[in-house]
Amino acid sequence: MNLNETIKNRRSIRKFKDMQIEDEKITKILDAGRWAPSGLNNQPWRFYLPGKEEKEKLAGFTKYSHVIKNCASCVCVYLDKNSVYDRTKDVMAIGACIQNMLLAAVELGIGSCWLGEILNRKDGVNEFLNISKNYELMAVIALGYCDENPASGRKPLRELIIGK
Amino acid sequence: MNLNETIKNRRSIRKFKDMQIEDEKITKILDAGRWAPSGLNNQPWRFYLPGKEEKEKLAGFTKYSHVIKNCASCVCVYLDKNSVYDRTKDVMAIGACIQNMLLAAVELGIGSCWLGEILNRKDGVNEFLNISKNYELMAVIALGYCDENPASGRKPLRELIIGK
Repeated sequence: MNLNETIKNRRSIRKFKDMQIEDEKITKILDAGRWAPSGLNNQPWRFYLPGKEEKEKLAGFTKYSHVIKNCASCVCVYLDKNSVYDRTKDVMAIGACIQNMLLAAVELGIGSCWLGEILNRKDGVNEFLNISKNYELMAVIALGYCDENPASGRKPLRELIIGK
Repeated sequence: MNLNETIKNRRSIRKFKDMQIEDEKITKILDAGRWAPSGLNNQPWRFYLPGKEEKEKLAGFTKYSHVIKNCASCVCVYLDKNSVYDRTKDVMAIGACIQNMLLAAVELGIGSCWLGEILNRKDGVNEFLNISKNYELMAVIALGYCDENPASGRKPLRELIIGK
């Protein structure tokens, strides 16, 4: 799979097989995130890996609870507020970090879903996971072996180019 | 090059050879950006490609003017404020879009530099480029054939995993 295929094969997967993900693959996914670019190389991303029981309860914080319940593992992606130098740039860096992880998952045969709705209850999530307020929840990434192959579409490039 | 190599070979390149980039490669880079994920698939990214003379003048809006002057082409990445549904999520999506472009560049043998300091004068950039205030400048990506091979480093993974 070349990069173009990896990018285009990435889909939001919400149905997963009843199979665990090898620890080594989780490490590779996090490692891909770690190598994202960030302003001043401040690397503001942090990761929390809920245990099995925590994952079940975490599902209660989003209306997409079935995705968290159904996935094999999930990664809570945090912004380390102590590392912030410019919120907009740091939030973009987190996006780059997540995209690296999603692409790495595709290459490892793992499906993923980038969950954002759970941010509506981010303070509750921190409290439940006993995570300091210095860390701000940015996304939960559900991971697992795909049990669906949904289609996706994009606007044509000409609609994205502005000016002239 | 597999994805892991592409991710780790990406560097901020600030010195470029005096060679133009083929139009087809620029299109492939933008196309990679287009396929990033976004909340509700709202695709809030927009691109502006300055012409040669515009690029020279754009350089005047950042203290890193030498990077813009030296690069072959650059892409101004905008957030379409009319597409926004949640600023944090949309800004992350822009980060994912930029990361796709940076990785696509690596695979095409092109170096890149994600410039953020220019955002300090984003309103001035829009005025100069005659771009509506509905678009917010998020980054300028300098592109060109690499004329340097800088090193980079990252925190070890264990420092990025929080809790427990």
